[in-house]
This record gives sequence, C-alpha cells and structure tokens, in this order.
Amino acid sequence: MNPRRIAVLAGGVGGSRFVRGVRAAYPDARIDVIVNTADDVTLHGLRICPDIDTMLYALGDGIDPDKGWGRADETWSIMAELKDYRVEPTWFALGDRDIATHLVRTQLVAAGATSTEITAALATRWITDPALHVLPMTDGRVETHVVVVDPDAPSGRRAMHFQEFWVRHHAEPEVLDIVQVGIDDATATQEVSEALTAADLVLVGPSNPVVSIGPILATRGVRPALRATPARVIGFSGILGGSPVLGMAHRLLPAIGVEVTAGAVGRHYGTRRSPGGILDAWVVDSRDEAEVVGVERAGLPTLVVPLLMTSPEATAEFIRAGVEFAS
Amino acid sequence: MNPRRIAVLAGGVGGSRFVRGVRAAYPDARIDVIVNTADDVTLHGLRICPDIDTMLYALGDGIDPDKGWGRADETWSIMAELKDYRVEPTWFALGDRDIATHLVRTQLVAAGATSTEITAALATRWITDPALHVLPMTDGRVETHVVVVDPDAPSGRRAMHFQEFWVRHHAEPEVLDIVQVGIDDATATQEVSEALTAADLVLVGPSNPVVSIGPILATRGVRPALRATPARVIGFSGILGGSPVLGMAHRLLPAIGVEVTAGAVGRHYGTRRSPGGILDAWVVDSRDEAEVVGVERAGLPTLVVPLLMTSPEATAEFIRAGVEFAS
Repeated sequence: MNPRRIAVLAGGVGGSRFVRGVRAAYPDARIDVIVNTADDVTLHGLRICPDIDTMLYALGDGIDPDKGWGRADETWSIMAELKDYRVEPTWFALGDRDIATHLVRTQLVAAGATSTEITAALATRWITDPALHVLPMTDGRVETHVVVVDPDAPSGRRAMHFQEFWVRHHAEPEVLDIVQVGIDDATATQEVSEALTAADLVLVGPSNPVVSIGPILATRGVRPALRATPARVIGFSGILGGSPVLGMAHRLLPAIGVEVTAGAVGRHYGTRRSPGGILDAWVVDSRDEAEVVGVERAGLPTLVVPLLMTSPEATAEFIRAGVEFAS
Repeated sequence: MNPRRIAVLAGGVGGSRFVRGVRAAYPDARIDVIVNTADDVTLHGLRICPDIDTMLYALGDGIDPDKGWGRADETWSIMAELKDYRVEPTWFALGDRDIATHLVRTQLVAAGATSTEITAALATRWITDPALHVLPMTDGRVETHVVVVDPDAPSGRRAMHFQEFWVRHHAEPEVLDIVQVGIDDATATQEVSEALTAADLVLVGPSNPVVSIGPILATRGVRPALRATPARVIGFSGILGGSPVLGMAHRLLPAIGVEVTAGAVGRHYGTRRSPGGILDAWVVDSRDEAEVVGVERAGLPTLVVPLLMTSPEATAEFIRAGVEFAS
C-alpha cells in the first residue's frame, strides 16, 4: 500500500525517531504526528512540553544527537545561576537554548494561545516539511503524577510529578500508582480528530504504553476514532527482548498490571475486533518471536521483524514491513 | 564627621560606582541604597529591574567590568534563539545569566512577593556586606515612557518605553515629554522611609536627574523626608563639563526645562531653605567652577572637586570632601 495520509501516535525521544522513519518510508505522504502532552510540567514559571519539544527539535535537526533530547550546542548558564541563587528544583536540566523555547511558549500561554496554536507557531521554525504536522493530543492540561513507595514517608508512599520520578529519581522507586491529573477533561483537538478521521494509515509508535501512548488513548475522542477508522491501525512494540530500548516503561507497566513483554503490551492495546481494542496488527522484534502465539491467540495478527531504530532507513524498513503485513 | 548610617539615592551604573565609593569612604557605616525602579520593564514575560540588577551585580562582583552593566562571563544563547524564533523585541540584550535573575524575580512576583522582598531575596546572593542594604524606592509599579519627535508618525510624535528610547534608539530622537506611568500612586516603602528618617547623612548620587533621581524624589514620602531630616543632604553632579559621564541626561534635561549644566541641575534640586528644595550642599566637578556663582546665588553652598569615579578610592575622596564641606 502507498498511504497518502498517515496519523502517528507518539511520545518524545523514541517517537521522534519513529516519525523520521515514517517520513523515510513514505516520502510523499502527509504525516500528522499526535504527540503526548501528559508529561508537561511547569518549572521556574516556564511551561515545558518535553515530548513536543523533543519532536520539534528532532525533526528540525536542533536536537542534541548524543542525548536524543535537548538542544544541540546547548549552554548551561541559567542552571548554574539558579543553583547559585539556591532556587529549586535543580534536578531538571534546562539548557539555555531550551529555555528560550519555554519562554516563547510561556508568553503565548499567557496571551491565551492554545497548545495547538503554540506548537504550530514553534513549528514554523523547526518543521520545513510542509506535509508534516505536529499536533498536541489535546489543548487541555494533563499532568502525570506517580505514586511510589517511600519508606521515609509516614504513609509509606509519596506522589510526585512524573518528571521528578523519571529525571530526579531515575525511575528507581517502586511504582504503586500512576495518576493522570486532568485526563478526564482532556479532549482531542479538532486537528487530532480530523487527522485520525482522514488518515488512510494509523501507526502507534513504540513509545511508552503507560505515560506516552496511554494518555493519548485516554484523551476523549481518540479511542473511538481509532476503532471507527477504515484505515489500518498498526502498533509497534517499544519492548524488545523484555525491556524498553529507551525510557522506563519496565518500571511503569507493572503498576497498570501489564507484564514487561512485547506480547503483553500488544494484548494491552488489543485487537479492534474486541471491545476497546485499537489495533489491526502488532509488530514485535525478532527477539520476541515467542510472544507471537499469545498475541495471535488474543486475535491480533503479529509480525516479527528487527525493530531497532538505528537509522531512519532501518526504521522505514520495519514500518513498511508492518504496513504490508497489515494490508 | 563620621556617619553611622547613610542613605544614598541612586540609579544603576553610575549609582553602583558611587555606592562603592561610599563604602570605601565609610567602612563602618550602615548604608541604605534607595534605588530607582522607574525604568523597570517586562520583556518576554520577564520582570526586569535594570537599576536594581546593576546595583546587585556591581556590589556582588558579578557585573561585566567592561560594560558596567550585565553579567560577567555572560552567554547569549537565549537571545540567539529568540532571534531564530523571530520573537521581538531583540533590541534589549538579555544575557543568559541575567535572564536567570529575571526568571527568579518573575516567579517571586507571581508568588505575590513585593519588590522589596524580591530584592532582599536576590541580595542574599550578591551582598555579603551585612551593613549594606539595597532598597527599591517603592513597591509600586512605575514605568517611564518617553514622547519623541517622529516625522513618520501621523501626529509627528511617538511614545515609547524609556528602555526602547535608550537601548534601541540610543537616546537619539528629540524628546518632547517624559511620562512616569504610575508615579502618582508610588509610595516609598517603609524600609525607604525608615532609611531616610534614621540616616545621619543622605547622599544624592550623580545619577540621571530625570529618570533615576527624579522618580525617587517623586515617590510619595521621599521629598518630605529629605526636607525634614536633621541629617545633611548632599548632592553630587553627574553633569561634568556640560555633559553626563554616563547615560543620556543631556537628551532628557531639556524636556523638563533644565539646562545641561552642573549648575542648572543643582538649582533644579534646590536648597532645603527654599520651598521643595532637598539639598544642603552641591558638589560639582573641577571643570564646572564657573557654575558655582549661580548655584550659590540660589542659596545652595557648592563645592568644587574632581568628580570622576575612576576607582572606589577616588570616589571616596570626593564623597568625604563633600561631607566635610557640608558639615
């Protein structure tokens, strides 16, 4: 199949690599990237949308190529100053160039612009591809908090922002619960709904099923659109050989009762032929061949291919394979 | 005389050099520096107090020693980014380190802190001298706007923020009027009133009489306190040989009907023995000896000494001379 219009569900670092692969696979298609905004955070008065920023920087060749997030040629004067002012938090590394993005966003928020409008304004700098659109999943405000075991707390547990759990505590504390504050009021934007309705192909990227893809699916309107579309909906596993290539999904999946395997995540998304399921096909890595039986028994056709995103071309290859498999 | 407690009225760059001289002259005195806040400005959502910041950076050895304002070892990543985002204004140079100060201030403003409280919080980093206090003249909000000749405007005139006039237009347009928005509601803080009341010596620094010292004097409570204090009030000319050493007073004095001479500025401040006057003595530079007759004829004793602030010691010398002269 040669898709004309593709909708992609994605988080940040892995999501942006995946999107580069989608573009490499289908150079002429329109691509609407529906990006998670549930790990947004306000620090030092600055509104920060980590996944949106990573997506823009990565697609605009402004990303730090070694870290995979943050800006290339970054300077760190402001963090040093905040430390000298003894202003907390200091655990969230904000580079000076990155802060410029947050300053622009924060001003636009204050001026009443929506997240969609702000992302479009920032994208005029980063996205030169006229057929590539970066869309926040919602204009509502969602913040993910994680409840962890804390032996020092009187209750034995403590809630913190997801970014604090991930960046400050390196996802080490045991997770008891994940709370997405605001998700019940979050509605897909008109742009997202239109992207899902008009797409002739929908790809669910290998991003974190709990804190990236999960919130997108929980945004009002997304799951019904995925279940109703005549397009094929194909999911790609971010769990390879029993652990995530990037991030901390292995620390979060158990808290929502999902095993850390490519098979369990596929069954978690589910086939469109079952209630609530969203996928027509599931793609797992070569190392996870043993998982196929379980997923297919649950009614979800599953393809096994090498899933490492070592280059846009390598990513394009497995994306095309998945699409052909599902057609 | 050996003062125990000194109140200084001051602006930014020249004011901070003057204060270093005051400390060098009187190592054991308590010094309360009452700083102009009428050229404060909000840019990129950041609350900026140029005179306060210059004072803190200068007294804390954090200032760019060449420019006399801004931070030492400054980086400029954010300005470069804002330019790439095509976000205006770009004429006000904001270094990354400097922006950290504005971020901290902006957050404290949002949290409801007063300008006095914020300055004290920032000063904990910069001012190690326990007997030196930096006080904004008011917790009210004052912004200076300048009305200039603009042949391209339909009315032939245009109003702009003082910082735009000074930094962007280098004080070149002809000034028709100066409007201090908010000055009628600006009241001296309790700390300023107490500093003026408790001082046994008051020094009016050689800062701009129109946009630095002028707004301090126009702040409700300041002029009556200066007229009522039993302490000597001594003024120092910033006009040397017919022009300011720093800044753009020569572009502004004509707009308030004051000649650009050390004598005219002295008469503008006036002797405390005349209605509204604030000074017991006026100190002018050696080059301005011819001005003395006119000022003394107006009832204000005037001393002639070299006024160049080439070092804290040189500044201390003319300050001590002025104080002895007035005693």
